Amino acid sequence: MSTPLRSEEDIVGFERLGLIGCGLIGGSFAMALRRAQLVRHIVGYSASPGTTERARQLGVVDATAPSALAAVAGCDIVLLAVPVAATEATLLAIRDGLEPGALVMDVGSTKGDVVEAARRAFPASQLAHFVPAHPIAGKEVAGVDHAEASLFDGRQIVLTPLDVTAPASLQRATDTWSAIGSRVVAMTPDAHDSALAAVSHLPHLLSFAFINSLAAQSGAPQALSIAGPGFRDFSRIAASNPAIWRDILLANREQVLAHSKAFRETLLDLETLIARDDGPALESAIAAARGIRAPWRPGALPSSTD
Amino acid sequence: MSTPLRSEEDIVGFERLGLIGCGLIGGSFAMALRRAQLVRHIVGYSASPGTTERARQLGVVDATAPSALAAVAGCDIVLLAVPVAATEATLLAIRDGLEPGALVMDVGSTKGDVVEAARRAFPASQLAHFVPAHPIAGKEVAGVDHAEASLFDGRQIVLTPLDVTAPASLQRATDTWSAIGSRVVAMTPDAHDSALAAVSHLPHLLSFAFINSLAAQSGAPQALSIAGPGFRDFSRIAASNPAIWRDILLANREQVLAHSKAFRETLLDLETLIARDDGPALESAIAAARGIRAPWRPGALPSSTD
Repeated sequence: MSTPLRSEEDIVGFERLGLIGCGLIGGSFAMALRRAQLVRHIVGYSASPGTTERARQLGVVDATAPSALAAVAGCDIVLLAVPVAATEATLLAIRDGLEPGALVMDVGSTKGDVVEAARRAFPASQLAHFVPAHPIAGKEVAGVDHAEASLFDGRQIVLTPLDVTAPASLQRATDTWSAIGSRVVAMTPDAHDSALAAVSHLPHLLSFAFINSLAAQSGAPQALSIAGPGFRDFSRIAASNPAIWRDILLANREQVLAHSKAFRETLLDLETLIARDDGPALESAIAAARGIRAPWRPGALPSSTD
Repeated sequence: MSTPLRSEEDIVGFERLGLIGCGLIGGSFAMALRRAQLVRHIVGYSASPGTTERARQLGVVDATAPSALAAVAGCDIVLLAVPVAATEATLLAIRDGLEPGALVMDVGSTKGDVVEAARRAFPASQLAHFVPAHPIAGKEVAGVDHAEASLFDGRQIVLTPLDVTAPASLQRATDTWSAIGSRVVAMTPDAHDSALAAVSHLPHLLSFAFINSLAAQSGAPQALSIAGPGFRDFSRIAASNPAIWRDILLANREQVLAHSKAFRETLLDLETLIARDDGPALESAIAAARGIRAPWRPGALPSSTD
């Protein structure tokens, strides 16, 4: 029944994964772990029994559990792949069932609130083995039916350890994500939330505002009918999951609002250049944006000025 | 030397194309026309002699001309693929060399200013055969080296005929773009400019503002280093050509500023929901955006409400 483990020389490997939340991200993590032969047995639990059962039918989990508490029993690794807003309740639900020293990770898109939730929910003995994680990966479609073992291949994973995180647990988390093909980056929860507000949360907010502003105009259907590849790519993230993005934008409220305000001021400056017919300054501003964006590649620092 | 034409039953076909502007769009049009065996001979001219010569080396044009005026001699079809701001000067330059009844088209991203330029530059006899055109296609990279015959395959082309456009010339323009694989849409110049402001010019302006606002922040390098696919797609158009986009934004100034203002107001509304921690209203707003964007496909009207 179970997948054979790799040889005993392997640096990282687990007996039993407790998966809380069998959706796109959780399901993909389970599949990636199995593909890499890093785990012997996977037990899944989702708030919706239908989701848990579907994950079992698809072979994403070996067995289902009737509760989050039951799912973590006997596990040496636990992954929370639940909405960020459900983090604290989930940590409280599993607290009394965790094995001593079990590695616990989440996959939330915000980290400051997750860290606060963990500090409230976990005693020091468990907090030491909690490693907050955020894989920079996803799809517009949700659900375990879209999960795939390759979702994290080559993608970055940000780990935001606490001051009390045990070095060995951070190392195990790092090794695990590396072993399934991700590129691991570590930073503080605050640095993560600011960076994510800048490069992910704000773009999502802007794309939601863009589509809603467009839709409110009388010529919207005709305009949409001649929209091209630029529109397609720019607005792709406007089709993201509403409940998930409601939670993210609220959880990272201060950073999102600060970045949105700064953006609006920059936009107003550009509008002023257009209104003044200031071609040279407008071209310089566009050239500056191009100079940052054109050399950018996923996971790479932008090159200096070329 | 020349490419054989299709059989005589073909609806559309030309003896000689005069290509003014041998860049990405102009070069691709020439290649597409040749691939479809719709033209016997192609003469090219670019403001830069090096560009004209490169187009000839690549076989995109059969011969080069020393001036725009010389390039249109003997041509039954002329394509202007020059910066929008250069339209009027180019029309004036070729006016005295055009064959009677020659089909003249441009490919500018704005149409109100192009139509005004044509009305000033052309006498009535030539204005009747001028069909303003805007192919909704492109790349971030410019230049004839990136031209390809398939650039317009399946892409929409908007034609904005004037009240004085000869029906036969509009038909020839329609047949030509259809024959090279494009999907032809006709609308007024004003409707085009409003629609393009909404789905193309505004997204470009927003992406420029977004990148410049991000770059001004102290944590920008780290943020860019963990940016993912959402950032990649959302900001792709920020790498567009500065001179071209300076011209477009200025040429369509009123529409762009009106759409940007409406966008800022919608963004402020969303910020207010976030600041108030109004989860239900925020989720509704995101769901509305998703409802518009998720079913959208290039060239298709959005489906009603699913």
